Amino acid sequence: MRLTKSTDLALRVVMSLAVIGEEESTIAKIADAMQVPYSHLAKVAAQLQRLGLVESRRGRGGGLRITAAGLRASVGGLVRRLEGEGDVVDCEGATPCPLNSSCRLRGALRRAQEAFYASLDPLTVEDLTRSPTGPVLVGLVAVNP
Amino acid sequence: MRLTKSTDLALRVVMSLAVIGEEESTIAKIADAMQVPYSHLAKVAAQLQRLGLVESRRGRGGGLRITAAGLRASVGGLVRRLEGEGDVVDCEGATPCPLNSSCRLRGALRRAQEAFYASLDPLTVEDLTRSPTGPVLVGLVAVNP
Repeated sequence: MRLTKSTDLALRVVMSLAVIGEEESTIAKIADAMQVPYSHLAKVAAQLQRLGLVESRRGRGGGLRITAAGLRASVGGLVRRLEGEGDVVDCEGATPCPLNSSCRLRGALRRAQEAFYASLDPLTVEDLTRSPTGPVLVGLVAVNP
Repeated sequence: MRLTKSTDLALRVVMSLAVIGEEESTIAKIADAMQVPYSHLAKVAAQLQRLGLVESRRGRGGGLRITAAGLRASVGGLVRRLEGEGDVVDCEGATPCPLNSSCRLRGALRRAQEAFYASLDPLTVEDLTRSPTGPVLVGLVAVNP
């Protein structure tokens, strides 16, 4: 069972920015810390901006910062939005399953997916940065640690 | 959030065989009904045999049949075994995450994953074949419907 690579990165970005709070970081710095391509991280950062969780300042010395809404965001809610509405198996792909709406498995997997998200609902992005996670992250992403 | 393609197929195979009970089907018939490659389905069927959920009879007229253990198998237990021990994000891939064991997100995602499986635990393979699923499946997979 896997989340998408974009969701994985988005969670790391908000955690990284949450831990430095009012400070800023840059896409380049975070991409370097996470050893992922700059272009992929830039797309993820743009999506987080659209969701109002991150704000950016352009130009020389500009960077990324978490918003107040980003700090308070529910991890379950965030993962729901990042993952979208899809099923955990391929019910409606290029060759849709003939069972489709009469499938008991589909309903069961939807309830299981909801249980997954519900387990993450009470947790906020800020919660994820408490010790021991926070201190390790600070050194990785702060531009001037 | 996605299960692997192999888990998806394995669930469809046990459901398909459960619905025809004492009857047999063949890998070719099921692969055709599900519009998936024969070779992929053969691997999945071999895995289900190793788990004792399916039995096969070789040779001309031979086929696949669900076992009593297969009918009673918990869907949660089955998905756990098929998916293995991995994390839902890439904690230990080619470039392991520097947070790793000090990561609060990792723990939270493990609990969420467990909530997903736990939601499927009370359900058996046989439960998945009750109406309206069963009647639709019979026509698809029985060799002599």
